[in-house]
Amino acid sequence: MIRNPSAPQQDRSRATRERLLKSALASLAEVGWTQTTVATVAERAGVSRGATQHHFPTREDLFGAAIEHMAEARLREIRFALESMPEGPERIRHTLDLLVGLYTGPLFAAALQVWTAAAVDEGVRAHIIPLEQSVSREAFRVAAELLQIDRDSERLRAIVAATLDLGRGLGLAGILTDDTVRRAWILDAWAEELNRIVAEERSRVH
Amino acid sequence: MIRNPSAPQQDRSRATRERLLKSALASLAEVGWTQTTVATVAERAGVSRGATQHHFPTREDLFGAAIEHMAEARLREIRFALESMPEGPERIRHTLDLLVGLYTGPLFAAALQVWTAAAVDEGVRAHIIPLEQSVSREAFRVAAELLQIDRDSERLRAIVAATLDLGRGLGLAGILTDDTVRRAWILDAWAEELNRIVAEERSRVH
Repeated sequence: MIRNPSAPQQDRSRATRERLLKSALASLAEVGWTQTTVATVAERAGVSRGATQHHFPTREDLFGAAIEHMAEARLREIRFALESMPEGPERIRHTLDLLVGLYTGPLFAAALQVWTAAAVDEGVRAHIIPLEQSVSREAFRVAAELLQIDRDSERLRAIVAATLDLGRGLGLAGILTDDTVRRAWILDAWAEELNRIVAEERSRVH
Repeated sequence: MIRNPSAPQQDRSRATRERLLKSALASLAEVGWTQTTVATVAERAGVSRGATQHHFPTREDLFGAAIEHMAEARLREIRFALESMPEGPERIRHTLDLLVGLYTGPLFAAALQVWTAAAVDEGVRAHIIPLEQSVSREAFRVAAELLQIDRDSERLRAIVAATLDLGRGLGLAGILTDDTVRRAWILDAWAEELNRIVAEERSRVH
C-alpha cells in the first residue's frame, strides 16, 4: 500500500528534514566529524531517533545530504545576487567575494570535516565523491555565468576553474586564523588580472 | 647534572626521532587523526613508549614536529631543484609543479588531518598556528625566489601569494580523487598568465 500523506504531514516531514540537515552542518563545523553522529544530530535538532533514521538511515546519508543541501542553497543565493549586480569593473571583484563565499563559513568548515574523514575512509569517500563532483560542476557553471565568459575560450575556462581552486585554497588558509585582510588583498589583485584577461579575450574575438 | 651523551648516542637519538616523525606523518596520511596516537606511532616506528615520550611529551608535539620537519625537507628539496632549473619560459611551469608539490602527497594529506582537527580543537589550534605561519612565510620566500620576482612590486607579491593559495586549493581538490589531468590543465593556463605578468612588470621597471 502506498501511503499518501496529507499536505500538513508532508510539510512537517520537510521541516524535520531541514532541521536535521542544519543541525548536522552546524555540528560538523563546531565539533567535527568524530564528535558528530546521527544520535548527537538528532538530539541537537530535537528530533526522535526513529524519525531521524527514517530520513537518514546512515551517517553518510545525513552528512552528504547536509552538505549538498547547503551548497545548493548557497549557489541559489549567488545566482540571486547576480541579478542585482552592477555592470562595470567592480562586477568581477563582487563576483570573487561571492564565489569565495562557497569556501568560507560553516558550509566549508563542515565540508572540510567530511572530506578529511573521506580521505582515510573508503566507504565515506565512495558516498561523497559523486556529490562533490556535482557541486563542483554547478560551481563552475555559476562562476562562468557570473564572470560572463565566452565558454569557447579555453583560456577563460581554465582561468575560471583556477579561480575556484584559488577560492578553495583561501578557504583552507582561513580555517585556523582570521585571514580576511590577506584574502581581500589577494582577491583585489586577482580581480585586476581577471578584468584584464576577460577584456583581452573579448577584444580578440570581436 | 647535565648529561653529556656521546656522539653515537646522539646519532641514535636523532635516528629515533626521525623514525617517529616519519611514522607519525605516514599514519596521519593513511588512517587519519582519530586513529593516530602517540602509542600507535611508537608501535609503527618500533620505538618504546618511554623513548617516544622522551622525544615528544604530547600528541601535538609529535604531530607538529612531524609536519614541520617534512615541510622543511620539502622546501629544501625545492631550493635544491632550483639550482638545476633551466632559464626560459618553461621555468615558471616547472616552478608551479614544485610549489604545488607542497600541497600534494603524504605531507599534505597528513597536514590536512591536523588542520581539520585543529579547526574544532582550541588546544591543537594554539599549537599548530605558529608552525603553520612559519611554514607559510618560508613557502612564500621560496616561491618568490623561484619565480625571480621583484619584491618591490605589490602586483607580483600578491600574485605569488595567490599562486600558493591556488596550490593549496588544488591539493584539497585532489584529496578524494585523482585530479592530475585537470590540475595540469589549470597549471598550464596559470603559467601562461604568470609569464605574461612577470614580463609586463619587468618591462615596466626597466
